[in-house]
Amino acid sequence: MNLKIAVLAGDGIGPEVVLQAKKALHAIGVMFDHDFIFEEALVGAVAIDKTGTALPEQTLNLCLNTDAVLFGTVDNKDNQDTNLNSEKSPSQGVLKLRKELGLFANQRPIKTYSSLVPFSPLKREIIDGTDFIIFRELTGGIYFGDKTLNKDKTKATDLCQYTQEEISRITHLAFQAAQKRKKKVTLVDKANVLETSRLWRNVVQQISLDYPEVALQFLYVDNAAMQLVVNPKQFDILLTENLFGDILSDEASAITGTIGLLASASFGTTKALFEPLHGSFALAKDKNIANPIASIVSAAMLLEHFGLQTEANLVYQAVQKAIDYNVVTMDLNPGTNFGTHEVGTFISNFI
Amino acid sequence: MNLKIAVLAGDGIGPEVVLQAKKALHAIGVMFDHDFIFEEALVGAVAIDKTGTALPEQTLNLCLNTDAVLFGTVDNKDNQDTNLNSEKSPSQGVLKLRKELGLFANQRPIKTYSSLVPFSPLKREIIDGTDFIIFRELTGGIYFGDKTLNKDKTKATDLCQYTQEEISRITHLAFQAAQKRKKKVTLVDKANVLETSRLWRNVVQQISLDYPEVALQFLYVDNAAMQLVVNPKQFDILLTENLFGDILSDEASAITGTIGLLASASFGTTKALFEPLHGSFALAKDKNIANPIASIVSAAMLLEHFGLQTEANLVYQAVQKAIDYNVVTMDLNPGTNFGTHEVGTFISNFI
Ligand SMILES: CC(C)[C@H](C(=O)O)[C@@H](O)C(=O)O
Ligand SMILES: CC(C)[C@H](C(=O)O)[C@@H](O)C(=O)O
Repeated sequence: MNLKIAVLAGDGIGPEVVLQAKKALHAIGVMFDHDFIFEEALVGAVAIDKTGTALPEQTLNLCLNTDAVLFGTVDNKDNQDTNLNSEKSPSQGVLKLRKELGLFANQRPIKTYSSLVPFSPLKREIIDGTDFIIFRELTGGIYFGDKTLNKDKTKATDLCQYTQEEISRITHLAFQAAQKRKKKVTLVDKANVLETSRLWRNVVQQISLDYPEVALQFLYVDNAAMQLVVNPKQFDILLTENLFGDILSDEASAITGTIGLLASASFGTTKALFEPLHGSFALAKDKNIANPIASIVSAAMLLEHFGLQTEANLVYQAVQKAIDYNVVTMDLNPGTNFGTHEVGTFISNFI
Repeated sequence: MNLKIAVLAGDGIGPEVVLQAKKALHAIGVMFDHDFIFEEALVGAVAIDKTGTALPEQTLNLCLNTDAVLFGTVDNKDNQDTNLNSEKSPSQGVLKLRKELGLFANQRPIKTYSSLVPFSPLKREIIDGTDFIIFRELTGGIYFGDKTLNKDKTKATDLCQYTQEEISRITHLAFQAAQKRKKKVTLVDKANVLETSRLWRNVVQQISLDYPEVALQFLYVDNAAMQLVVNPKQFDILLTENLFGDILSDEASAITGTIGLLASASFGTTKALFEPLHGSFALAKDKNIANPIASIVSAAMLLEHFGLQTEANLVYQAVQKAIDYNVVTMDLNPGTNFGTHEVGTFISNFI
C-alpha cells in the first residue's frame, strides 16, 4: 500500500514523539512492503512564530492532499490569558483544521493496562478492566455556532446547533463499532434541558432500530461525569456531542492515570487525523523524557483505519511488550534508564 | 428569630429525609427560642400527578412569600425518555423555580469526612483532605437561552448567553467566600472556544482586582474535569457557569463516594433554597433506609444563611457525632441497625 501522510508535529514534545511514531510506521513499511511517504508542515505556536497563524494555508493544503494526518501536540499557552485573540490561538488552528478536513467523528479508546493500574487515581477494583471508546462529534455544536459580543462588551452569546445529518453520520459509526464489541451504546446528553439534546435522542433512537443487537442507553451528562468515576467498566461505546465529549473524554483519560499511553483518531468522509491525547509539555521538550507510546499508538490507529489490522496488531503487541519489560519513560517508572528515543527504538525493533 | 420556611419535600425519599431535617431545625428552635414555621407544598412528579404540573402556582406563591425553601428531591424519570414534554417534566419544574425565585448562585461544598474516605472511588492519598466549594451560576447560560426546533425536526438550537451583570453578582459572592477560606478562586471556562467564556474571564479578572488577597486562576473545563479526579485538593472556590457547574459538581460529589452526606444551597437577592444532592431514590422510599444526613446538612446551611452560625455548628457537630459513633444508614454501613428515623433522631437529640 502507498500512503502519503502529512506530519504536523507541532509544539513542545510533539516533534520527538511523532518521530518515534514514524519509526514504528517505517518498520511496518519495510516488513510489509508498504510505501509510507511523510511530508512535514507547521502547526500551533511554532507556526504562529514563523508565519503569524496557527494553521498556515500551506499546512492545510498539504493535509487536504494527503491520505492522513499524523498530528503531534500544540501549545495551550492561552490557558491563563484573558485576551484570546482568535488569529493567534493554537486552539483556533486546531478547530479550523477539524472543520476544513471535515473530521466529524473523534474516537478515543479508554483502556487500562493491568500492570499500570497502580497509576490510576481510582482504586484497582473500580478501574481494572475498563475498556470503552468515546465517540465525540467534532465539527458541530457550540464550538462552531455563531458567537456574538455586544459593543460595550457586556453581553456575549454562543449558539449550539445540530442537524439530523450531523448526528446521524457519527451515530452510524458508533453503532457499527458497538456491533464489533460489547454491543452497547450510551448516548450522553442533557435532554431534560437542551433542545439539541432532544434532537440527538430522537435521531439516535431512530437509528438504533437498524442495529437491533446493540443496546441503547441514555445518560444525562452530569450523571455520566459521575459514572466515569464510580463505575467506568459499564461503558462500551459512549456517544456524545462536541462539548460534552471534550469534557468527558478528558475526565475518562484522567481515570486511567496513564495519559501518556492514550491516543485519538478523528475521521471525516475522506480524511483522517491521528494524535496522542497528551499536551505539548513544554518543560520536557528535547530532554528525551517524553513518553512516545501515545503517539506510536496513534500511528497504529492510522494503520487500522487503512485496513492494515495485522500491521496495527504488531504495533500494539510491541507496545505491550515495552510495558511488560518495563521499557518505559519516567512517567511510568521514575528510576527508568529509558528515554523517548530508547522506548521508540525498542518498539520499532520489536515490530 | 422568626422564619417562615416553605417545605417542598417532592418525590421518592424526599419526604422522609426532609422530615429529619425539620426535626433538627425544631431542636434548634426549642434550644435557642427561634420560631420556625414550616409550610408544605407540592413539587415534582407528585405535583404532576395531583395537579398536572411539576411546579403548581400555589407552590411558587408559597416560596415567594417565605424566607427560605427546604427542598427534598424530585424524580428524574424522564431520564430514559425521548419525548421530554416540558409541561410534565420534573426538571422543568426545578428550572422554573430557580428562575422565578432568582436563585442565581448555587453553592455546593465538597468535603470529605476522614473516617469515610474508604467509600471514595479514589485512593486515600488523593481524596483525603479535599475541601472546596463549587459556585455554580444557576439562572443563566444555555439553560435559559432561546431554544428552537425547525418544523421538520431536522435542526435544533440552544443559545448560551451571559451578561456582565449575571457574571458579576456571583463572582463577588465567590471572592467573598474565598476571603474567609484559602483565598483562591479557580474560574472554570472554555475561553479558547466560547465567547461567553471570554466574557466570564474578563469580568472575573476585573472583579478580582477588588480582592487583592485572593488568587485567581483560570482552568479550561476539560482540564478541570481531569483535575477533579487527579488532584481535587488543589481547589478552594471553583467558580463556573451553569452547564459546566452541573457537570463538574456531580463529578465532584462522586469523588467523595458519600453523596448521601452532601447538600447544596442556592441564593438569590432575596430568596434562598436548600437541598440534598442525592436523587429521589424511588426504590428506597418508605423503607426507612434513606440517609437523612444530606438533608439535615442542608438545614444547617439554611441556619448559616440567616446568620445563625452557632446553631449551624451544633448541627454539623451532631452530624459528625453520628458518623463518629457509626449511627449511620446502610449506604455507609451495610450491617447497620439504624434507619432514616433513628439517625435523624440521634442527630436532633444530640443537638
Ligand atoms: C484545543 C481545544 C480547542 C480542543 C477542544 O476543546 O476540542 C482540545 O481540548 C481537545 O479536546 O482536542
Ligand atoms: C434537574 C436538572 C434540571 C438539574 C440541572 O441540570 O441543573 C440537576 O441536574 C441539578 O444539577 O440540580
